[in-house]
Amino acid sequence: MSAVSGNTITLLTDFGTVDYFAAALKGVLLSAAPGVSLIDITHEIPAHDIHAGAFTLGACWHTFPAGTIHLAVVDPGVGSERRVIVVRADGHYFVGPDNGLFSFVYARASDIRVWRVTRTDLFRQPVSATFHGRDVFAPLAARLARGMPPEQTGAPVLNYQRFEMTAPSLDTAGNLCGEIIHIDRFGNCVTSLTTADLAPEHTGPWTRLVAGDCVVRNFVTHYAAAPGAELMAYPGSAGYWEIALWQDAAAARFHLARGAVVSVQHGPIRHGPGV
Amino acid sequence: MSAVSGNTITLLTDFGTVDYFAAALKGVLLSAAPGVSLIDITHEIPAHDIHAGAFTLGACWHTFPAGTIHLAVVDPGVGSERRVIVVRADGHYFVGPDNGLFSFVYARASDIRVWRVTRTDLFRQPVSATFHGRDVFAPLAARLARGMPPEQTGAPVLNYQRFEMTAPSLDTAGNLCGEIIHIDRFGNCVTSLTTADLAPEHTGPWTRLVAGDCVVRNFVTHYAAAPGAELMAYPGSAGYWEIALWQDAAAARFHLARGAVVSVQHGPIRHGPGV
Amino acid sequence: MSAVSGNTITLLTDFGTVDYFAAALKGVLLSAAPGVSLIDITHEIPAHDIHAGAFTLGACWHTFPAGTIHLAVVDPGVGSERRVIVVRADGHYFVGPDNGLFSFVYARASDIRVWRVTRTDLFRQPVSATFHGRDVFAPLAARLARGMPPEQTGAPVLNYQRFEMTAPSLDTAGNLCGEIIHIDRFGNCVTSLTTADLAPEHTGPWTRLVAGDCVVRNFVTHYAAAPGAELMAYPGSAGYWEIALWQDAAAARFHLARGAVVSVQHGPIRHGPGV
Repeated sequence: MSAVSGNTITLLTDFGTVDYFAAALKGVLLSAAPGVSLIDITHEIPAHDIHAGAFTLGACWHTFPAGTIHLAVVDPGVGSERRVIVVRADGHYFVGPDNGLFSFVYARASDIRVWRVTRTDLFRQPVSATFHGRDVFAPLAARLARGMPPEQTGAPVLNYQRFEMTAPSLDTAGNLCGEIIHIDRFGNCVTSLTTADLAPEHTGPWTRLVAGDCVVRNFVTHYAAAPGAELMAYPGSAGYWEIALWQDAAAARFHLARGAVVSVQHGPIRHGPGV
Repeated sequence: MSAVSGNTITLLTDFGTVDYFAAALKGVLLSAAPGVSLIDITHEIPAHDIHAGAFTLGACWHTFPAGTIHLAVVDPGVGSERRVIVVRADGHYFVGPDNGLFSFVYARASDIRVWRVTRTDLFRQPVSATFHGRDVFAPLAARLARGMPPEQTGAPVLNYQRFEMTAPSLDTAGNLCGEIIHIDRFGNCVTSLTTADLAPEHTGPWTRLVAGDCVVRNFVTHYAAAPGAELMAYPGSAGYWEIALWQDAAAARFHLARGAVVSVQHGPIRHGPGV
Repeated sequence: MSAVSGNTITLLTDFGTVDYFAAALKGVLLSAAPGVSLIDITHEIPAHDIHAGAFTLGACWHTFPAGTIHLAVVDPGVGSERRVIVVRADGHYFVGPDNGLFSFVYARASDIRVWRVTRTDLFRQPVSATFHGRDVFAPLAARLARGMPPEQTGAPVLNYQRFEMTAPSLDTAGNLCGEIIHIDRFGNCVTSLTTADLAPEHTGPWTRLVAGDCVVRNFVTHYAAAPGAELMAYPGSAGYWEIALWQDAAAARFHLARGAVVSVQHGPIRHGPGV
């Protein structure tokens, strides 16, 4: 069994910062794990948006040092039978609901173990019907911070929840295909295609990204490089190609949503007869 | 005299996080109490809303460990003769204006002492006309964090300000009555009635909460349990019954405001003649 | 050479708190400088508004203890040839782009040294095209926190960027003139005039501030002192005279913008013939 040695706990929730909810997590954490260092990732995940929480956590957890405990609460299923889990992935620890919130962690990490928490005696009593962040997840994170090995919180599980994240594949025309995995607050569309899938130096004058009715021909190094009215694609800082409009919301303007297929096409556009 | 040993200071203000105000508090605290740990409760209390600040602080201070120093600045009376106080309540310390901001602390704690601060030499000089958070309250909190006993900051007072918080009582019809004590940012109405006043298992098909023209018959375990157009009541995570509408603002929709009487009625509704 | 001994790093950015950007800075800082204490100044600087960032940092950096490292990223020029600098000013350290963001620090500090960073081996590899906060500035700040003297990061420069900040001067009529240096989020106008330039006790019934078409005759001690429809001026907590309207946006109402001249006039208003 491996004891957790980290003394940093990060927090990611959809609680906002207006109410006392995030503060109550912090109080419980400091009470149960004195001296722990608390770092807000964000409390501004859109309410109940597990996908947005997963993407946001997935884009930054690996910048923290190994041993960090990540407490993540985006939990529309509170009160239902969804499981409470502890995850160890590449030396990081995660505590939260088993609803897909750690999908991007699973996708990136190579060494993953997951436990379903069964030790309800570790919870803050009485457990409220709705505030499991305070009563269930924070006490668990504090226990890990104080050195409890995850093995002692419950039983290993293999069938933990994760979003289906389609690996880039070839369509019938031989084009590489990915999908839109995140719409950020500016309406920029993050795709599942990385620069390993499409190297910037392999984009030429005929290269284009096609998503729905929308065709992107303008490949640039970064967002600010393409002021203008045309759609652009650039390698975003999370490691994926992004589709954006200069100072506009590409997603709304072109009706692009999470899950939309994005294909990479090369060569002259072949028009059918009569076109 | 009792020295303060806590090394955590929480911050609750109505300063927002756009400007430098909250940061200036933090700078003063770290300058005067090196190594202290700073925790934001919130800076998003609506401007000058002492009641909202009091409710928010009241809902989370007790989750922090004893010895914590809570710095609270919602201070519309800055520049007037309102007093500066230090409070010790159940082992926690509070610094702020004497304007009712600690009312919910007083309501919950059993061991309370309050000092009016008279030692102006403890303040940051020169004291500005408007920014007592930086110049008065933060320096005081830092002193406490460094071990100064509250007794040394001023003189004990007994007539500190607190909102009148009516204990649940019986009306002429024998119904238990409380009031609305907080409207949250979603328009949900938090009442003063706890589950000790009205146990969930004592609600039956004829039980109802009546507030103004509004009658709530739908008692549920938690907010998400009652999607639909009907008003619901559930025990909120702050310990009080709340009245809410699924994804709507109950307060605005039913003209419910802070202070409105809420009565618990049981049994068949008796209609007058002709009804 | 002087080693940095501070273990506090403040963060000021225009990243917002919805996305993972600020969190990624924190992760990199904690990974590269374990145990460092992180303090958010704000992440809500309006996007790319270097002036607002400079004013906000300028209003609070000096409240922190000497040795503090201030990491500031408002960087519309990322990807261009703008320089990366480390600043030491009155015992504080600053890391950020050389675009004027430290202008108010330069204006206040007496002992200033600036280095252009040339040691690209200190950066996080690979350096992305757009996220220099994570890949360039945070790793530098962490190095300073671990004791690297700024001298080792690059070469001293003297021609660092700073906004032209006109010192108060006399106009042809002999009136003291300053300018508006900041519009805050409420639409209040912060001028460059301090109480050393215009002492409150030297304002009389004929004293007025004139900015564009707008004449302010109402000198008060603080904002809340003048509820009403008239423009007022008061010494703000950042040390400058501010022009405001009670619960209204003076800037929008009177078309006042950053850079507008503000003159102090005394004595009866002389009217021209026929007026």
